[in-house]
Amino acid sequence: MSEPFKVGLLGFGTVGSAFAELLEERADEIERFNGLRPVLSGVLTRSRGSFEEIFSEADLIVELMGGLEPARDYLLQAMRAGKHVVTANKQLLSQHGEELFETAREHGVRLRFEAAVAGTVPVVRVLEESLSATPIERIHGIVNGTTNFILTEMAGGSSYAEALAQAQRSGYAEADPSDDVSGRDAAAKMAILARLAFGAPVHLNDVRYEGIEHLQGEDLEYAHELGLSLKLIGTAERRQGGLSVRVYPTFLYSGHPLAGIAGSFNAVTVESETITEITLSGPGAGGSQTASAVLGDVVSVMTGGARPPAPPLPMPLVRDVESAFYLHLDVADQPGVLASVTKVLGEHDVSIKSVVQRGMHEHARLVMVTHPVLESSMRLAVEQIGGFDFVRSTPRTIRVIEEEFS
Amino acid sequence: MSEPFKVGLLGFGTVGSAFAELLEERADEIERFNGLRPVLSGVLTRSRGSFEEIFSEADLIVELMGGLEPARDYLLQAMRAGKHVVTANKQLLSQHGEELFETAREHGVRLRFEAAVAGTVPVVRVLEESLSATPIERIHGIVNGTTNFILTEMAGGSSYAEALAQAQRSGYAEADPSDDVSGRDAAAKMAILARLAFGAPVHLNDVRYEGIEHLQGEDLEYAHELGLSLKLIGTAERRQGGLSVRVYPTFLYSGHPLAGIAGSFNAVTVESETITEITLSGPGAGGSQTASAVLGDVVSVMTGGARPPAPPLPMPLVRDVESAFYLHLDVADQPGVLASVTKVLGEHDVSIKSVVQRGMHEHARLVMVTHPVLESSMRLAVEQIGGFDFVRSTPRTIRVIEEEFS
Repeated sequence: MSEPFKVGLLGFGTVGSAFAELLEERADEIERFNGLRPVLSGVLTRSRGSFEEIFSEADLIVELMGGLEPARDYLLQAMRAGKHVVTANKQLLSQHGEELFETAREHGVRLRFEAAVAGTVPVVRVLEESLSATPIERIHGIVNGTTNFILTEMAGGSSYAEALAQAQRSGYAEADPSDDVSGRDAAAKMAILARLAFGAPVHLNDVRYEGIEHLQGEDLEYAHELGLSLKLIGTAERRQGGLSVRVYPTFLYSGHPLAGIAGSFNAVTVESETITEITLSGPGAGGSQTASAVLGDVVSVMTGGARPPAPPLPMPLVRDVESAFYLHLDVADQPGVLASVTKVLGEHDVSIKSVVQRGMHEHARLVMVTHPVLESSMRLAVEQIGGFDFVRSTPRTIRVIEEEFS
Repeated sequence: MSEPFKVGLLGFGTVGSAFAELLEERADEIERFNGLRPVLSGVLTRSRGSFEEIFSEADLIVELMGGLEPARDYLLQAMRAGKHVVTANKQLLSQHGEELFETAREHGVRLRFEAAVAGTVPVVRVLEESLSATPIERIHGIVNGTTNFILTEMAGGSSYAEALAQAQRSGYAEADPSDDVSGRDAAAKMAILARLAFGAPVHLNDVRYEGIEHLQGEDLEYAHELGLSLKLIGTAERRQGGLSVRVYPTFLYSGHPLAGIAGSFNAVTVESETITEITLSGPGAGGSQTASAVLGDVVSVMTGGARPPAPPLPMPLVRDVESAFYLHLDVADQPGVLASVTKVLGEHDVSIKSVVQRGMHEHARLVMVTHPVLESSMRLAVEQIGGFDFVRSTPRTIRVIEEEFS
């Protein structure tokens, strides 16, 4: 047997135990390729193990406990002592990323986190390495499998509540799904991707996001009629000399590379003038898939194939960007409604691309798609429209990504 | 200015000149991230430069001249002298790969070749690194952009000749397209991918392949009617205790991740029990895209982020595998034809899943889809059927990949 490479594991939940099993299963093969054999030198669970002991023995610490503390403290301690670290902790990275990156740089250790972003989809490595010489313009991602599963079910005719219940039964949503359905989980992942793609420090708080809880079956029906897909899309892009990072439910034209991503899959599209666009897709999460991404990171550290994080390159964050919108209004079926609505839109520079009005007894449904307009203008217009007496329920807006490639 | 990292460039055609330009353009950014500045220390073209001079100066040799010799000799010389090398030469790798890998291992140098396989799609890195801890079951790839462009045009109603002419006008096909349309280019790439995914040494000669020249508009019409896509699919997979590597025109069900890949794009799907499947897609080739992949390799060598190729792990090559087939026959419209055809198929254990017969005046068109059957059995059956007097033109067979995920 060749020299052991000692891995200390923090956390032994679904992913932690799957990782321990996979490590054992693949140790022979990894040793054959790399001349070093990875062995688990210690495991910290809620009820057993001591961090100090695990830490002093290990060449590398794998953190799969989740949460901010003590995960942050453990990782900082490990790196300060010259240990490499691998983590799948997106909340930690999106809120304390710069501190962790800075510590890794200072102590010359590796900090790997492929499993924190898009499940098995190797977007972290591709951004860090394959595309490190490519000026990236934009990233679009479906980075939350739970919401993509729910939206796929809704596109098949389920209500939001039914789809959520189905996701919970299938193990794709947790008992408390709020982190997923609110868009917060996706926002954390987009903060990490934005840092990788653009070098700019982006905190979770810098990401504007909206979830899928307010979406209705009829929004999906509308999408179906027009051949559009409705997805929770994370975007990080250069805009107006700065960087915009956001997560919103979005209509995509059917030819968009993310339009066909179904079920709990994740996918990321990277656009750049040099390469046009590349798309990566695969299963979003699940114990064995995440464990596989974590083990890939461990092997990458063992073989020296990971470089320290680059120093940050601050960029102004642009919070108000232009987007095309779908606007859905339930209104009383009375004269002058359309005129009042379009007047308010016009006052806020919102230009209308298409309108569909359908009467249903006493009230009518008005569906409009706008040309690109500043989000702030649209928000003000919609607030004002929502105040009209003839508006029967809260107006709903959904962003639209129209055909860009042909 | 920090220490220069000297790059010697062999070949200055479309890709070589795009690479030289991109290197200059991105040098500042690369230096900022890595502390080393890549500089072009010499260029070998057909008319100027000396290999010995370029070679003695450089830290790394980039080979973009193509062809087997002198490319092979130059790369071997460079590696024996301890220089790292980056190449985009798929013919060389698929025919002399083991010699090159062995030399790299022996001299502890990096040998990178992302641009040799799937244009900008970073499948080499993902297989070598992200998935190095994952036991892979199967790879399917659209790895030739020219043929995918032609098939996309044919799906839109063009004849093969029109589509090829269009590809040539658009710069997607060369004046002599035979390497692409015969499937040989894709076969070379699949040999390289098979080596990466399974560790087994695979020579271009070990890959069975068939091109797209014989495909007819009506095959595409048939695909359209049934909601199938017709693609040139490369496959490398574990089969019967060995490895099968092959490239064939193939019908895909519409939900397959490769079914929607259009135009000159490339895409690769990697399947494994641990990760289910991941898919990578992007532009197939073009000077600036290939140059970007080459520069990614250069940066990866600069940062120490590439490991030497693993030693080979020989596996038996399985040449006769089971596949479902579409069989197209032009026959005389006379009694007993279907009975004669099905009798021959039955004698060769070919079981029929569906039949469509259409009469057209004097002759009829018989289209069948079979259940999976050994290729050798199908070939014998089709040879025998082709000998019947009532068969009016050479029978055509196309493989079919049916729904596997649901």
